[in-house]
Amino acid sequence: MTRILGIDPGSQRTGVGVIDVAPDGRCTYVHAQALVLLEAEDFPSRLGLLCDGLEALLDEWQPQQIAIETVFMAKSATSALKLGHARGAALATVVRRRLPVHEYAPRVIKQSLVGRGAADKEQVQHMVRLLLNLPGMKLQADAADALAIALTHAHMSATAARTGVATHLLRRRGA
Amino acid sequence: MTRILGIDPGSQRTGVGVIDVAPDGRCTYVHAQALVLLEAEDFPSRLGLLCDGLEALLDEWQPQQIAIETVFMAKSATSALKLGHARGAALATVVRRRLPVHEYAPRVIKQSLVGRGAADKEQVQHMVRLLLNLPGMKLQADAADALAIALTHAHMSATAARTGVATHLLRRRGA
Repeated sequence: MTRILGIDPGSQRTGVGVIDVAPDGRCTYVHAQALVLLEAEDFPSRLGLLCDGLEALLDEWQPQQIAIETVFMAKSATSALKLGHARGAALATVVRRRLPVHEYAPRVIKQSLVGRGAADKEQVQHMVRLLLNLPGMKLQADAADALAIALTHAHMSATAARTGVATHLLRRRGA
Repeated sequence: MTRILGIDPGSQRTGVGVIDVAPDGRCTYVHAQALVLLEAEDFPSRLGLLCDGLEALLDEWQPQQIAIETVFMAKSATSALKLGHARGAALATVVRRRLPVHEYAPRVIKQSLVGRGAADKEQVQHMVRLLLNLPGMKLQADAADALAIALTHAHMSATAARTGVATHLLRRRGA
């Protein structure tokens, strides 16, 4: 059994999703939530909240692998900067625990879950519920995205194991 | 005596500078260096190195206040993103220690040290050496910038103490 933590970083809300992957590739839902950072009094404190929240999750759920979304073209330098801060704080937290980090581009995540790189958010969330057998569960959008990232890593790792191709090569091919 | 750590964040090299400020406002050099992050095997590991390096410095020098440069208009979304990651990792590390963080724009730093917002790097470094009484010392550029940030905070705090104006207001007025 492998436990994966998926992270969808954001400076207002960071989604986190934990799944277990059985040796046969079956994925089970463990936990998902959004870390809400808006209540912090200033921007540096938001990053502190993000790291504290992640540390608590790492302690509680003890994931063995981390999957995180790469940043696609940001709308502007300002939004890239904010997103970069959140992603940098998140990456630093997991890397300092010596956990392996796998990065996936948004279109690779959509391709992996829905079969199309241009799928919309609703389709991705639908597939997350389907794959994790959570038909009635209401998932917060950022939490669902984090689960999608974790599922993508599970699928890519399974494909890599079957074909003997390293995940970072598959990722590049898919990206 | 107040000990200030100045940070000049970068994803390749992060400058750090520690100074002591006496009650009369006199500043003394304590330590300065550049944390070189390029040797890390990938980008997430660079952020890990940055945080490990900062943690070690916080342990060794026990600063009471942190001063960090704000990001001015980045050249591109890509460079903003990289710089954001480094700055986010650095901020998260100091905020999690509950250390107060003060942010200064590059032109406020130049204005504070040289008297002109458009001063060049050489002028700033010259003033750093002069103010800290380090005439013959060869300072690495990022380390000198970090000392400049720490000195700016010392000056702004002294001005604030004299005039009763909070530093964040001075900063906004200067920015």
